[in-house]
Amino acid sequence: MSEPLLEQLIEALRVLPGVGPKSAQRMAYHVLERERDGGRQLAAALSAAVERVGHCARCRDFSEADTCATCASGARDAHLLCAVESPADRLAIEQATGYRGLYFVLQGRLSPLDGIGPRELGLDRLSARLAEGGVQELIIATNPTVEGEATAHYLAQLARQHGVRPSRLAHGLPLGGELEYVDRGTLSHAFGSRAEMP
Amino acid sequence: MSEPLLEQLIEALRVLPGVGPKSAQRMAYHVLERERDGGRQLAAALSAAVERVGHCARCRDFSEADTCATCASGARDAHLLCAVESPADRLAIEQATGYRGLYFVLQGRLSPLDGIGPRELGLDRLSARLAEGGVQELIIATNPTVEGEATAHYLAQLARQHGVRPSRLAHGLPLGGELEYVDRGTLSHAFGSRAEMP
Repeated sequence: MSEPLLEQLIEALRVLPGVGPKSAQRMAYHVLERERDGGRQLAAALSAAVERVGHCARCRDFSEADTCATCASGARDAHLLCAVESPADRLAIEQATGYRGLYFVLQGRLSPLDGIGPRELGLDRLSARLAEGGVQELIIATNPTVEGEATAHYLAQLARQHGVRPSRLAHGLPLGGELEYVDRGTLSHAFGSRAEMP
Repeated sequence: MSEPLLEQLIEALRVLPGVGPKSAQRMAYHVLERERDGGRQLAAALSAAVERVGHCARCRDFSEADTCATCASGARDAHLLCAVESPADRLAIEQATGYRGLYFVLQGRLSPLDGIGPRELGLDRLSARLAEGGVQELIIATNPTVEGEATAHYLAQLARQHGVRPSRLAHGLPLGGELEYVDRGTLSHAFGSRAEMP
């Protein structure tokens, strides 16, 4: 192959997660062979999103406007605030649960070794928001990883400082999972946190 | 989610082969969270390729110029012409074999039901090229499918009409494959085409 534009496209496609050299090549060929219009639209959508999608000033989720639609909506319960690590986590909760409160998107987790501290996660803004007084419960939905747990502890302290009740998503066996195949940490936690049956 | 640009991007990403709603979402979030520069480059590369990569006038492969680098090269053996269905097939042969002849990319296969006849495959151009007299062997590398075989037969006739020797890639057991797991058609063909051992 010696067509620079084609090579550049294949190389550029590898910015997408999970796309290696072989699938990048297949994607480039597919678009050029059969989907030139779709390719044009993708280029425009990508360019527009990259340039114009910023972050909501209140919750730090992706937003085109200063304040995202969720934060601007009067229909959400402002007493509940749910802290998540990423916009994808927020979307997962929104799609899977009936939660009608508001969100705060950390855009990361505490990780001092990578230079990610409270400042990078916008915790000054979260602190100011908790100080406003409207929030009654901070639902902490960081990932159950070491860094996610550390972040959860930090957030819980912050909530208590402002008289807000912190809560954490339950850990345990996944629904439909088989005990035999669950990892040790989860099993040990689920065993230790067993609850009396009603 | 209610950010139009983000939704448009996720929808537009689905033009890529093998990308469903979930991976499109992951890709969009990944680019916006961590790869805005890469996203910008991808948009530019995609736009440039879609607008400016056309087809080589001689071999119908993708090319930015009127004639592609392979056809324009004086270093290739013009006595050999290899007909393939797609640019991806051409690339696979180029990468796997030491073939130094030229190519003709059909951009499809004969499929009368889909309205794809000799005209759509540029066979008038192939015919004119064989009539020029330089080509001695037409290596037919269409896929071993029903339509690919029909196309191969058609191409072989065309070659003979111009006094060009047609040849076809060998069919049989794949290297490293196990007899037990090879499909019946391939096994039957390989058995019937057995060759005496030297």
